[in-house]
Formats: sequence, C-alpha cells, structure tokens
Amino acid sequence: MEELFDIAIIGSGPAGLSAALNAKIRNKKILFLGKKELSEKLYKAHTINNYLGFPNISGQDLKNSFKKHIESLEIDIMDMFADTVYSMGDYFSISVKEKVFDAKTVIVAVGMDFPKTIKGEREYLGKGVSYCATCDAMLFRNKKVAVIAYDKEDETEALYLSEIGCEVYYIPMYKETPKLPDRIKIINEKPLEISGSNFLSALITDQRSIEVSGVFVLKQMKPVQDLIPGVETADGHIVVDRSMQTSIPGLFAAGDCTGKPYQYMKAAGEGLVASLSAVAYLDKLN
Amino acid sequence: MEELFDIAIIGSGPAGLSAALNAKIRNKKILFLGKKELSEKLYKAHTINNYLGFPNISGQDLKNSFKKHIESLEIDIMDMFADTVYSMGDYFSISVKEKVFDAKTVIVAVGMDFPKTIKGEREYLGKGVSYCATCDAMLFRNKKVAVIAYDKEDETEALYLSEIGCEVYYIPMYKETPKLPDRIKIINEKPLEISGSNFLSALITDQRSIEVSGVFVLKQMKPVQDLIPGVETADGHIVVDRSMQTSIPGLFAAGDCTGKPYQYMKAAGEGLVASLSAVAYLDKLN
Repeated sequence: MEELFDIAIIGSGPAGLSAALNAKIRNKKILFLGKKELSEKLYKAHTINNYLGFPNISGQDLKNSFKKHIESLEIDIMDMFADTVYSMGDYFSISVKEKVFDAKTVIVAVGMDFPKTIKGEREYLGKGVSYCATCDAMLFRNKKVAVIAYDKEDETEALYLSEIGCEVYYIPMYKETPKLPDRIKIINEKPLEISGSNFLSALITDQRSIEVSGVFVLKQMKPVQDLIPGVETADGHIVVDRSMQTSIPGLFAAGDCTGKPYQYMKAAGEGLVASLSAVAYLDKLN
Repeated sequence: MEELFDIAIIGSGPAGLSAALNAKIRNKKILFLGKKELSEKLYKAHTINNYLGFPNISGQDLKNSFKKHIESLEIDIMDMFADTVYSMGDYFSISVKEKVFDAKTVIVAVGMDFPKTIKGEREYLGKGVSYCATCDAMLFRNKKVAVIAYDKEDETEALYLSEIGCEVYYIPMYKETPKLPDRIKIINEKPLEISGSNFLSALITDQRSIEVSGVFVLKQMKPVQDLIPGVETADGHIVVDRSMQTSIPGLFAAGDCTGKPYQYMKAAGEGLVASLSAVAYLDKLN
C-alpha cells in the first residue's frame, strides 16, 4: 500500500466541504475528491435565503465564501471523481480511473444530481453497457461502440477507444462543441434506448437506430449503489443513522445522497457529523 | 383558544434560528420563544472555525450574522422561556410563567446548557422543591424558603414570595449583584444539598444548614424530560429520527438537545430539517 489516508471525502458540495474542514481541523490526513471549482449546483442557485448567517445570498457568493473557508485551512481538492469505493475489511480502496487510493474511512457526499438512466441502460449493464472506458475498452477492441458523454473530459475516453481500433459514435450530452478527430463520429442526437437480446446490439436515438456492440455511458456521478457496491440504500439514498454511519463500518455519508430535504444547511450539518464520527471511528482503530 | 400558532419554536440558538427562518420562508405563523439577544453561549465562544462559509469567526460576529439574518426576515423573538410543553392530542399547550400559548406543532431547540442538579433536588421535587415560584408560591405562604436563582430576572420571583409573607433566603448563581430589599436575605454561599425526611427541611450550603420549608430552584432551562412530560429521552437527550421527529407526533427537536456533537453547524442543519418536517406535518393536517 502506497499511502493510507485517514479519511477519503468524495464530493465537494456543502456536505463534503464541511466534512473536509472538520477533518482538517482534527488534523487528519485527508483525500478530497471532487471539483476544484466546487459543485456546479452552487453556481446555478440564484438566491439562497435559508443558510443561517447569510441572508439572501447568491449561489456564486456563497460558493466563494465556502471556497475561502476551505482555502484558509489549506485544504486541497483533487479534481477527480471516484468510480468505485470498495470495502477491503479494515480499509477502503477508491478507484479513480486508472488510479487506486486507500483510506481508513470514507465519507460519501456525492449529492443526488445524477443524469437520468436511459431505457435499457441498467438491463444491459455488463452486457455491452459500461460506465468506464478505461476499464472495459479492450473488450470492444475493433468493434463499433457508442459513447454517451456527460462531460467534456470524456473526449479523451473516446480518443482512447478510437486508438485501440473502435469505430466510435460520440454523443455529447454537454453544451460545449467537442474537439475530436474526424474518425470519431459526433452525433448530436438524443439517446433514447439501448436494445438487444442477450447482449446489446443497438443504440436507438430520437432519429435512428445505430448498430453497436458496446455503449459507454460516461457519467461523473454514478448512482450510489454503483459507486459503493453493497451499501444499504432506500429509494436511491444511502441509509445512515444519526451519526451518519452507513451499513458498512467506517463508511459514512452526508448531504443529499442520504435523503431529503436537499438543502445546503442540512448537508453542511451532516458533513460535520459524518466527519466527527469518522474521527471517533479512527480513534477506536488506534 | 385565543390564537393557534402553526409552529412554536423553543430556544434561540442556531437550531432554533435555522428552524425559525425556514418556517418563516414557508409562511407559517410562528411563536418563537427565546432570548431576543440570542443565546449567551454564542457570545462566549471565542473563535469558531467549522461553520462552513465563515472562516475563523468570533462568537460575537457569528451571532451578529445570525441576528441580521433573522431580522431581515422580520422574525420576532419573544423574550421568554417555556416552562412546560404539553401535548393536547391535536395541538400543544406551552406554558410560559402565567401565560399559555397554543400551537399545532412544536420544535424544541433548547440546547444542553442546563445548570447542574443539586444533591436532593430531584428527590424532593414536589416535596418542597419547586421550579416555578409563580406556580407554587401560595403553598409556602408565610414560611421560610430559599431561592436558588440562575438569572437576574429571578429577583422578581423572590420579591413576589416575600410579598406573600415568605421569609426569603436568596442565593444568586449569577455574577451581577442582586438589587433586592433588605427583608430578603441575600446569601453568597454555594448550595450543596437539599435534605429532609418525607418532606424537605433544610438547604445545606458550603457554610451551614438553613432550615426552610421550600426551595425554589429557578433555572431558565429545564432538563428536557421536565420541559416535555412524556417525551422519549436517552442519556438526557431527546430521541429523534432522521426527520427530527420525537416520540410525540407533531413535536420535533433539533440541536444539542438531540445529542452530540454539540456544534453550531449540526444544530443549524437539524433546525432546517425539523422545520421542514413540521411544515410537512402541517400540510397533512390540512
């Protein structure tokens, strides 16, 4: 094991930020995976009036206050997102694209802002549908594949697939215009359904059916049950107790991913509780 | 019934404030009992560094931010403290000295800053020990009583007892010098024990034993089990679920009184959740 973190925090919304600052104050070695520029959701909010202490603040201003706070404690956010969190018994392995990080405890604060599932996506998962090009590309070498991409960064995944001989249809679900070589077919259509029999055979869009052997659905945020295999969920939320402990010892969760109301103040409060619970858990380990 | 409030909020720490602003935003008719100048605990804190958005802020400055927020929403705090909360079936009665207020739901956010119990205090409660001079004074008419007072305002209670013929020993547990007429004996001693046989007969201080028929222990904050008869508690905290619902339907709790960690951010988050749960409860009533 290269480096063992005390607490890995996944997600940089209010819950993750609050967890991180408490962990830092308690002098823990933290791995903080999220967006350096903080959650996009914060940008988007117009005015927030129920975050106690900040009357009528814009999402942008509140985000700046959060950022200042995190920076004042020299907390570093690694600009990456976790693919999977595995419990290894007495520690956790967090896979991030081709990297793996290890931590004694994990705080999951990934929010609930997941892209909608396409019809057939769950049914053909592992039967032609993949959430990770880096992991599964070789299975589709020299075949036709579609890439449904929710982030500009996914263009590198499409390039990689193309480089190993795939014929790639690239469907950007984001606003920016993709910059990709001509050999990759950019399709501005709406994916509607993934179909096939035992194995998938086509992606159906709002305009046509495309014959493919594989469909890569590249979402930064995966539903929690895919991110953390085996964790207890209810209605798509991670089940936690009042100490923010999940069904997996050492794994805590906070914020929207633990249930409604989806509010910054609730998320920030839960981030604090999760962090102090993780600290108490670490104290018992030693 | 004179006036029926939608939500009564008891306590003006971060949990109560957060509950109040969410209730107000949801356009509910609120009764907010607490300290107009907000909780003393906030004044006392030197620096707080884990309230997300306010790096390294003084207790005084954070209190001012909270106050500004509450005032921006024209939320009024009634400068009084609840003596008892009774469930009346489909509403609650909150007694405040000689007044009674009614509300459809209650959010208890009284913190955990209770004065320590004196030896014998619980044993002789109702057998000479009283928490309310206004309520029980007449039982002690023309008798010797001791008043253990935790707040300058309690001087009026001592005056009242004196006026109905009690011989009053007044023990101030606060810093200010009491302003009381000479007929009330001010004793700067430390109360140690309340003793007697079937009924109490003496208050023992660090310097002597004083023969009395009654001891009034005047605390603004009563332990939660005295404030809310019948509510489920554990280790002195009110038991709540993740929606901040207590064992009594329509009664919610938030902040320190629901358990550790005793932190502003946790309290504020819980205040929000309790408030939105109360709103959802009210919606179902209609």
